[in-house]
Amino acid sequence: MNLILLDPSEVDAHHARITDARRLTHLHDVHRAQQGDRLTVGIQGGAMGKASLITLSQHEALFALEDLCESAPPALPVHLVLALPRPRMLARTLEHVTALGVKEITLLHTKRVEKSYWQSPELRADKIHQHLVLGLEQARDTLLPNVTLCKGFKAFLEGQLPQLLSERRGLVAHPGMENACPRDVDEPTLLLVGPEGGFIPWEVEQLIQAGCDGMHLGPRILRVETAVTALLSRLF
Amino acid sequence: MNLILLDPSEVDAHHARITDARRLTHLHDVHRAQQGDRLTVGIQGGAMGKASLITLSQHEALFALEDLCESAPPALPVHLVLALPRPRMLARTLEHVTALGVKEITLLHTKRVEKSYWQSPELRADKIHQHLVLGLEQARDTLLPNVTLCKGFKAFLEGQLPQLLSERRGLVAHPGMENACPRDVDEPTLLLVGPEGGFIPWEVEQLIQAGCDGMHLGPRILRVETAVTALLSRLF
Repeated sequence: MNLILLDPSEVDAHHARITDARRLTHLHDVHRAQQGDRLTVGIQGGAMGKASLITLSQHEALFALEDLCESAPPALPVHLVLALPRPRMLARTLEHVTALGVKEITLLHTKRVEKSYWQSPELRADKIHQHLVLGLEQARDTLLPNVTLCKGFKAFLEGQLPQLLSERRGLVAHPGMENACPRDVDEPTLLLVGPEGGFIPWEVEQLIQAGCDGMHLGPRILRVETAVTALLSRLF
Repeated sequence: MNLILLDPSEVDAHHARITDARRLTHLHDVHRAQQGDRLTVGIQGGAMGKASLITLSQHEALFALEDLCESAPPALPVHLVLALPRPRMLARTLEHVTALGVKEITLLHTKRVEKSYWQSPELRADKIHQHLVLGLEQARDTLLPNVTLCKGFKAFLEGQLPQLLSERRGLVAHPGMENACPRDVDEPTLLLVGPEGGFIPWEVEQLIQAGCDGMHLGPRILRVETAVTALLSRLF
């Protein structure tokens, strides 16, 4: 928790009050926070700055906010379309990509996504929110990503992809493509990453016919969470 | 397990036999392997290729090896010096960096490494070996990284660093450095990454005085496992 991310409902003009067990425990056990300590805070969707701890008990922490005038760090110019990973991988991947600055995430069904993954409790809005918050707290950011679920590949292809590509360059990460992943890109990008086992050839063909470029990350097969971090870091 | 990594002791001229529960369970439950299936295998430290499954029981799998004439994928030209992370982070980080192709890893004590981490069972040679093997199996590689433990920062600075830097460019990843992480490097590199909380200023000064260049990955604070993957992917 490199930033205490405050919900607007926890803030009045000059003070913030938090009462949830997770953050209180962290303040007690990790920060070992004491009255008078200045900590980094940020308001969800807003600015960041410092706050002084007025009181800390087992039940609440009360902060006096200083002028919050620091902006959140820049976002990556990317919309990430990720074939739904298995639940534990999803949780970690959401934290990684949120920390790295992704603000638009579509979780997509593809042929090699196990259908049972769509029933996982990890897909509940509150669970997803939890992982996004952990990513923001890690990276000192205040702007939550949007996460959209898309349970049909064809529906995505026909319904959403044309609009997404009208303003972005589409890049499909897939082993065996001719071109290597580009580096140091700053144009708006739609990055598509397949599941463990990859997109099926038909899916890759459809994405390329729709206007995406294929690219690869080299001969090594990486886990989804490693691949996504590696792709984002190389691209931007 | 994208590759069945065979210990030389499991191989005779044209056959391989594996008997450990982990790989047998994986063959049964994930691969759902059947007699006659061709799977990708590799011999530790050697070549890769295909093998046909002759028999699979609860107790052993017997393979007929085809000509193993594929080389392991290229290694990254890097020696990674990593301040010892907390045990669970260490485990995952070893898997990530092995999958990415790192072959030389030094785990280093620095001021902000909790001393208790050095007592963790995760540092036992057999546990480390396990994570390296998982990384190789993921990435289809056969060459195990060397992992060295260095429990003293000064000892490292005076004893090992000069030699390491005589053949490599040293790069210290540290927030607030003037230069950004370089991209697309192919020269031999010594990459030094601090613990959660970072190197202390004195440590950074000493590393820079010894001839390393400082660099940063941007304003976001990343977890060690995310940062290391991001650094390796951007550098190479």
